[in-house]
Amino acid sequence: MEPIKVGLLGFGTVGSGTFTVLRRNQEEIKRRAGRGIEISRIAVRTPSKVKGAEGIGITTDFNAVVDDPSIDIVAEMIGGTGVARDLVLRAIANGKHIVTANKALLAVHGSEIFEAASKKGVMVAFEAAVAGGIPIIKALREGLTANRIEYIAGIINGTTNYILSEMRDRGLDFATALKAAQDLGYAEADPTFDIEGVDAAHKVTLMSAIAFGVPVQFDRAYVEGISKLDAIDIRYAENLGYRIKLLGIARRTEKGIELRTHPTLIPEKRLLANVEGAMNAVVVHGDAVGTTLYYGKGAGAEPTASAVVADLVDVTRLHTADPEHRVPHLAFQHDSLANTPILPIEEVTSSYYLRLRVADVTGVLANITRILADKAISIDALLQKESEHVDGEDKGETDIILITHETVEKEINAAITQIEALSTVVSKVTKLRMEGLK
Amino acid sequence: MEPIKVGLLGFGTVGSGTFTVLRRNQEEIKRRAGRGIEISRIAVRTPSKVKGAEGIGITTDFNAVVDDPSIDIVAEMIGGTGVARDLVLRAIANGKHIVTANKALLAVHGSEIFEAASKKGVMVAFEAAVAGGIPIIKALREGLTANRIEYIAGIINGTTNYILSEMRDRGLDFATALKAAQDLGYAEADPTFDIEGVDAAHKVTLMSAIAFGVPVQFDRAYVEGISKLDAIDIRYAENLGYRIKLLGIARRTEKGIELRTHPTLIPEKRLLANVEGAMNAVVVHGDAVGTTLYYGKGAGAEPTASAVVADLVDVTRLHTADPEHRVPHLAFQHDSLANTPILPIEEVTSSYYLRLRVADVTGVLANITRILADKAISIDALLQKESEHVDGEDKGETDIILITHETVEKEINAAITQIEALSTVVSKVTKLRMEGLK
Repeated sequence: MEPIKVGLLGFGTVGSGTFTVLRRNQEEIKRRAGRGIEISRIAVRTPSKVKGAEGIGITTDFNAVVDDPSIDIVAEMIGGTGVARDLVLRAIANGKHIVTANKALLAVHGSEIFEAASKKGVMVAFEAAVAGGIPIIKALREGLTANRIEYIAGIINGTTNYILSEMRDRGLDFATALKAAQDLGYAEADPTFDIEGVDAAHKVTLMSAIAFGVPVQFDRAYVEGISKLDAIDIRYAENLGYRIKLLGIARRTEKGIELRTHPTLIPEKRLLANVEGAMNAVVVHGDAVGTTLYYGKGAGAEPTASAVVADLVDVTRLHTADPEHRVPHLAFQHDSLANTPILPIEEVTSSYYLRLRVADVTGVLANITRILADKAISIDALLQKESEHVDGEDKGETDIILITHETVEKEINAAITQIEALSTVVSKVTKLRMEGLK
Repeated sequence: MEPIKVGLLGFGTVGSGTFTVLRRNQEEIKRRAGRGIEISRIAVRTPSKVKGAEGIGITTDFNAVVDDPSIDIVAEMIGGTGVARDLVLRAIANGKHIVTANKALLAVHGSEIFEAASKKGVMVAFEAAVAGGIPIIKALREGLTANRIEYIAGIINGTTNYILSEMRDRGLDFATALKAAQDLGYAEADPTFDIEGVDAAHKVTLMSAIAFGVPVQFDRAYVEGISKLDAIDIRYAENLGYRIKLLGIARRTEKGIELRTHPTLIPEKRLLANVEGAMNAVVVHGDAVGTTLYYGKGAGAEPTASAVVADLVDVTRLHTADPEHRVPHLAFQHDSLANTPILPIEEVTSSYYLRLRVADVTGVLANITRILADKAISIDALLQKESEHVDGEDKGETDIILITHETVEKEINAAITQIEALSTVVSKVTKLRMEGLK
């Protein structure tokens, strides 16, 4: 049988990695797919960057690849939400199947793209968009179909996990750890998308759609990064038996779906708390299966290519099947997505870590605990540091650290406003969320 | 569309769990599969055991279900290699798709069953046969198709992992920990299959076939359980920074495939070393993706049912597809399996943990290290205990613990024979294997 023909758009890290892996393992991949998979054309802005691809049609005309009738699958490896969107929609209109690693594109324009693909009867595969080479999309979409998924919590951004690991291991502050990550190539020159949580939020948005059968709704996601995280909170959390990780969380509740990305305390005994450096891991909790965890490299040329090629094999295996009987893009059949609301962050339920700077006088703790008790917020753990000495002099101030039981975010916010109004509380309260992940 | 019809053979833990999960989550499962999935007949030896299945045809005649023309999928939940084999082959001959949780059946009779299924153009799905609800078969067969898989190492038997966790945590000996596991229902009255490693060996045999594209060959697997494991080796291993786990290992080498199940030291920093109690986890290392890990419950009614129902959904999604384009049973196309040899244990390469009981006299260590050096076996770590005192009296004997670098098993065996011949070595050498899992 003729090999299936792939048109590759872009030849950066992921595009060139895909080319390399497909070539190196072509015999084994063919034995699996039952048919060869051939990159027959590559569109790239700077053709001189493409090495070792003799005999393959290289062009700077991206539309020419998308419009080429000989091409079965378009692999979009450009990134971003501009030209990538136009090319993907054009390829779909031409009846091509799509494989992409572009989380931003799908998190923001997913509904439009999946709608167009469903109408045209083509597949859009995006395993590489979430957690690199870890087959988490496949696990959610196919491996756990028996389950009512209760929650997902993932370390899905290697840059921030590397920074947090360095802050904890070596006692660095955020700026120094970021610089170290940049020097090692783990963080980009403009690290905003990573450190402000946007990249992780894109990924958890995609996972929430697949897990709960709802449309992709990045505009409803709560996004908070790690750039304001203080090294002292990492130490205090450790004293109390927790690690701080940037988690993407999607949870089903009776009121709606929680969709949020923020620094989170996790009990140190959880496997997820022990995922260090640039590694990724996702916990999925289903009502039948219980807790499962998926771990691996979340970025890099070959790990991401592993996911891209797996999608190419999937499309090769399934493209002759009747479109009604393929695996649906978002795990649920296109006509049966639910309109479950995404909750605003004020309606989210969590436990909280609070750090308060207080005057070291009698009664300060009583005032604080009374405010919490009045709102029925109970305290799970409390750490009061000894009064701080600067240059041998008692400053008369100290830190109180509290961990609360679960409460609704608007309640804790109201309590914090009251606490900050106390004359004995001398600065703003630091609030972080804690997840037990039982 | 009419629901797809499933005939259930057996209504024990997994059969009844499947029935419960399918009923509880039927709406969500239908939204995913695009079609209802209905258990329309149940064959069971004791019909009175079937509760809550009003309106479903219950029979003691297993052949009647297998021969029923209205049934599309036969779910074999009986277990064992006797009647289960006959029924599965008969169902295949009748053109039914098969879903099974039966690792023993597939590890021993897999080649015959897959051959029959290929000829008949039906699917045999067996996610539930390995690691309960963890979608590891799907990860290997579909999620990692881009990779040349280098090795698999799994904690795939919850009973033995529970026993080993208890031995380490509570300092119990094997017999006491086994009794505790039996009291809690984690171990059966006759625990032989679990504790002697047979169950884990069945599962790693299935994974090796999928990973390397070879036939299932349980008769070539090396199998060693934990019943002879001494509590003192768990303590010494811990002193040296290792945990002991029963691992199923399949590794590709230049000489052939290693396929082995045995107690194994793992560096305590590895996530796999921290999988405790009855949980399962599998590490898969691929050339593109690097190291990935999959974690979850490996047994129990609902976790196993999660995998069975996922397979039912897969079959429902794919049964109308042309058989040539479905996912192959063993990940590789049926006509392209390789005849790579499975290596005998003497040809396996590993690091080794050796415990020697020696007379506490000058020169004893020199004699031992010279034997190892002569065979070019280098030492990675060494622990020499102080001479032991019994009732205040120096017994003049002590333990020496060595961890070697990698060597071939027949070399270490030859060295052990020479070491045991030394007059200063007063008892048999204890040998365990160590895997770094980098």
